[in-house]
Amino acid sequence: MFQSFEVTARPEQGPPRLAALRDELAREGLQGFLIPRADAHQGEYVAPRDERLAWLTGFTGSAGFCAALTDIAGVFIDGRYRTQVKAQVAEDYTPVPWPDVSLSTWLKEQLPNGGKVGFDPWLHAAGQITAAQKDLEGSGIELVRCDNLVDRIWADQPDPPMNPVRVHPIEFAGESAESKIHHLADELKTADRTAAVITLPDSIMWLLNIRGSDIAYNPVAHGFAILHADGRVDLFMAAAKLTGLEDHLGDKVTQHEPDTFLTAVEALEGKVQVDPNTVPQFVADTLGDRLVDGGDPCALPKARKNPAEIAGTAEAHLRDAAAVVELLCWLDGQTPGSLTETQVVTRLEESRRRDNALQDISFDTIAGTGPNGAIMHYRVTEETDSTLENGHLLVLDSGGQYLDGTTDITRTIAVGDVGDEEKACFTRVLKGMIAMSMLRWPVGLAGRDIECVARLPLWLAGQDFNHGVGHGVGTYLSVHEGPQRLSRVSHVPLEPGMILSNEPGYYREGAFGIRLENLVVVEDAPALPGGDDERAMLNWRTLTFVPIDRRLILVDMLTREERAWLNAYHGEVVEKVRPRLGDAAQLWLDAATAPV
Amino acid sequence: MFQSFEVTARPEQGPPRLAALRDELAREGLQGFLIPRADAHQGEYVAPRDERLAWLTGFTGSAGFCAALTDIAGVFIDGRYRTQVKAQVAEDYTPVPWPDVSLSTWLKEQLPNGGKVGFDPWLHAAGQITAAQKDLEGSGIELVRCDNLVDRIWADQPDPPMNPVRVHPIEFAGESAESKIHHLADELKTADRTAAVITLPDSIMWLLNIRGSDIAYNPVAHGFAILHADGRVDLFMAAAKLTGLEDHLGDKVTQHEPDTFLTAVEALEGKVQVDPNTVPQFVADTLGDRLVDGGDPCALPKARKNPAEIAGTAEAHLRDAAAVVELLCWLDGQTPGSLTETQVVTRLEESRRRDNALQDISFDTIAGTGPNGAIMHYRVTEETDSTLENGHLLVLDSGGQYLDGTTDITRTIAVGDVGDEEKACFTRVLKGMIAMSMLRWPVGLAGRDIECVARLPLWLAGQDFNHGVGHGVGTYLSVHEGPQRLSRVSHVPLEPGMILSNEPGYYREGAFGIRLENLVVVEDAPALPGGDDERAMLNWRTLTFVPIDRRLILVDMLTREERAWLNAYHGEVVEKVRPRLGDAAQLWLDAATAPV
Repeated sequence: MFQSFEVTARPEQGPPRLAALRDELAREGLQGFLIPRADAHQGEYVAPRDERLAWLTGFTGSAGFCAALTDIAGVFIDGRYRTQVKAQVAEDYTPVPWPDVSLSTWLKEQLPNGGKVGFDPWLHAAGQITAAQKDLEGSGIELVRCDNLVDRIWADQPDPPMNPVRVHPIEFAGESAESKIHHLADELKTADRTAAVITLPDSIMWLLNIRGSDIAYNPVAHGFAILHADGRVDLFMAAAKLTGLEDHLGDKVTQHEPDTFLTAVEALEGKVQVDPNTVPQFVADTLGDRLVDGGDPCALPKARKNPAEIAGTAEAHLRDAAAVVELLCWLDGQTPGSLTETQVVTRLEESRRRDNALQDISFDTIAGTGPNGAIMHYRVTEETDSTLENGHLLVLDSGGQYLDGTTDITRTIAVGDVGDEEKACFTRVLKGMIAMSMLRWPVGLAGRDIECVARLPLWLAGQDFNHGVGHGVGTYLSVHEGPQRLSRVSHVPLEPGMILSNEPGYYREGAFGIRLENLVVVEDAPALPGGDDERAMLNWRTLTFVPIDRRLILVDMLTREERAWLNAYHGEVVEKVRPRLGDAAQLWLDAATAPV
Repeated sequence: MFQSFEVTARPEQGPPRLAALRDELAREGLQGFLIPRADAHQGEYVAPRDERLAWLTGFTGSAGFCAALTDIAGVFIDGRYRTQVKAQVAEDYTPVPWPDVSLSTWLKEQLPNGGKVGFDPWLHAAGQITAAQKDLEGSGIELVRCDNLVDRIWADQPDPPMNPVRVHPIEFAGESAESKIHHLADELKTADRTAAVITLPDSIMWLLNIRGSDIAYNPVAHGFAILHADGRVDLFMAAAKLTGLEDHLGDKVTQHEPDTFLTAVEALEGKVQVDPNTVPQFVADTLGDRLVDGGDPCALPKARKNPAEIAGTAEAHLRDAAAVVELLCWLDGQTPGSLTETQVVTRLEESRRRDNALQDISFDTIAGTGPNGAIMHYRVTEETDSTLENGHLLVLDSGGQYLDGTTDITRTIAVGDVGDEEKACFTRVLKGMIAMSMLRWPVGLAGRDIECVARLPLWLAGQDFNHGVGHGVGTYLSVHEGPQRLSRVSHVPLEPGMILSNEPGYYREGAFGIRLENLVVVEDAPALPGGDDERAMLNWRTLTFVPIDRRLILVDMLTREERAWLNAYHGEVVEKVRPRLGDAAQLWLDAATAPV
């Protein structure tokens, strides 16, 4: 079982640790210390040794940070975690709504007479520190580099992960590492840069066509890389992880132990490209004025999936869809009141494991029934495990890591007889998802320019949801991948080959939650009769094929076009997924996809 | 008659003037000179003496600029003017699609070995010059301040305007000048700034509750102002314009002659707030490091109309609607083939003048029939004047300046029997306008976040239009007012009281054009039953009440909700406007607003 239901953090663990940290603050003459959720690679998931935020505060969300001062400790959490944080941290911690309240605004309020706030320069991106320092100008508050004070007091902190790296076969990668290195090195040369420093593990995995298992759910290995404009790559990763990969890595890639990384950065000459939004402050400081803000050179080519990656992902989605449909068929046979959330999660993982293709799940399955559905990033534990009661909505958000692709799907399922209010909200969410699915838009637009399309039906009813409409997804890589996003913070133009989620939702705290999620890939839209000449447009191709619960749809609220989309979608589900199902699930699918 | 149909510029005037300008380039040792459309106040309309771009090139559009080099002269025009420019400039001028191609990109191509390009530092905003200089770094191309070389060769250049200024009554302004000055001075003090330099005429008019007539269609007087943090205002405007205004302006406002403006700027101490996007480069140079980028302090308060301004504007719109409906009634009685565009424009102006409330039109009426409708900013002249033929669509975009408000309305009208293709496109534009009209959205969003709503029906048919969905509108001020916009370039959050246009369109070059435009004002949206608690939302109130041509609607393409909106809108038109009409127009209106 990949997923555990263990309670990994408790509110009461926080206060004694905070007291110990404050002793360290006093010793260092600091008025505060910053504890980010991030590790040196700024990923969403971190290794156990990097779970400093959860260890100190009890908060286990995938984003946020703590600013521990001598007399207050703020836990900064975004809209997704406002409910969760209340249950996870002790009273000694003060939740701060972020980014509504920025770190600098809060620090200025708490330290009106100024002071020194320490931070570990490996764990904060340079851009983050620069922006905060700018906002703090004139306040008398200084952000100062220091040792990691949490590591100092964490007696049984786990060791860094040290797991073997494997080759990612060319049939799934679609382009050789040699070719990728060659193209990106050429781009660096053209832009007059001597090298690029790459600190994101998924970029390194993509560039070198390798995969690891240093952290849960993400097939990546921790390391750093320097891509030189002459086509050489220095890879800073423990030799023990790379056993047997000499042939695959070839002449151009040289392994170094990670502790030599900063020395190598120090030795670089000329202009060195980095992404200030992800590169550790330590690396930026070391580069000084050799640093050029040019982004991670792998980010966009990785986001623009090639035909092999898209074909692989499509196949992974059909395999995954069959597993999910088997689960839905089983679930439909259970009596309301007879099952709990963990039983659903366990059964779903079993269903995904059945054909041995599953490498991992792509994140902790979210199975939130009734009020738990309103907790956007709910992770069920032994203690929160709730029974699926009659009238509940069950939000089921899950995904698999397969060698050929990464999946991520959410369905909201009726448990017994559901009220009309829930159905009306569900139908609005569905209308939003359909509107986004049917969209065509002119080339050049970013997520920000179109994301409202999935919100309109909710807005018109005075409703909305506090998360983006979609995130980028990797191919057998991170289930949350940048830079493409369907979000108001995203100004990156969408391009063919980018894979994103389309996942509007609706959440009523203490009552119920709704989310529907398909993955979609950007394609060049075919010309239409009567359409403008010379106006290049894009559209989506849907990758996820699992039925949408018809019992929750108020059909009268759908337009003709929406009904036609839904019936056509269900037709495709049958065509593509039915042949992969057992007899019972085939019959169930036929009923579940009957036209509305 | 406010509008003239005179041809004010001809392609053939350009080449000899360009030759004379090139002689000046040689004399000054320059490789080029920039000729913007703008004057020192960066407005959309300019006085005759500031029509340098049109005088030199023949291009009369309201935006754009020329970069005249020794062997090529680029005329930079945006998407609205791509067609018009071809007809207006001689072959010696090269149209450059802008902003797709930026000035700096083009200069680098044209001057690969570098060179000096002159500009008049009064006519370019500081931000514009700074951005261009940054883009030109390392290219060897320098932008250098110089005399205005066009003024030097323009023998019969008109004098600056010198028209009287009048008081804008408190019943329309809604807040005294004293109160506005007091509030803004306080804000400067709080932000630790000693003064703000204001160079936009409409900001000065708004702040001092005055109006002028120095340029066509905009009730503004040219001048500059310095608002001091202690509540004093220095107004740099010829005394001759301000006769009789001493009492209104009061003790706090001191008149100075305009030629003392720079000396006064030079004498300022401390931090001085300006809007770098509009302040002339000359002013920015004079301020040096005293300059603080804080925007024009009048911009947002001017954009957020107060209740008196909104009530006045609503009344102006009803008065204006009656004039437009009378015109539509008359137009409907004419036989296809019997009228030309100028006759429509003339008759519409007569209709607006009838009750003596009209102070001016708010811009040259666009009356484009058939293929002329595809020219987005078409101005009909004696030479282009075309007959309204059977099967044409007539795009009629016009507005009035009234003491209580500024109007701007576009309707597209069927001439005789119109084809189904035109009707389908019209119906999509209408669906887009209705979708925007019906929208509710969460507080905090900008034009960029919602403007696609008006484009969706076109996008789904492979169509789009090359202009924003809407612009801000002043109250008895500029018909195009910032910073609020419904556009992908607008990141300014929409706020209650802002007035904007909602004007999607569709244009098929050489064939037909369509545009529908209502003005709308942002309001706090009322709570809805079932809507989210604590989610503040905004919506529009429509200000424009003129029927939409039912003959052009393919009713089957409308949803129930769209039909309901249209019928309710037409019901309001009857209720509000019918009592203001003559007998014939009343009967016409009843038929024109019958439910669909």
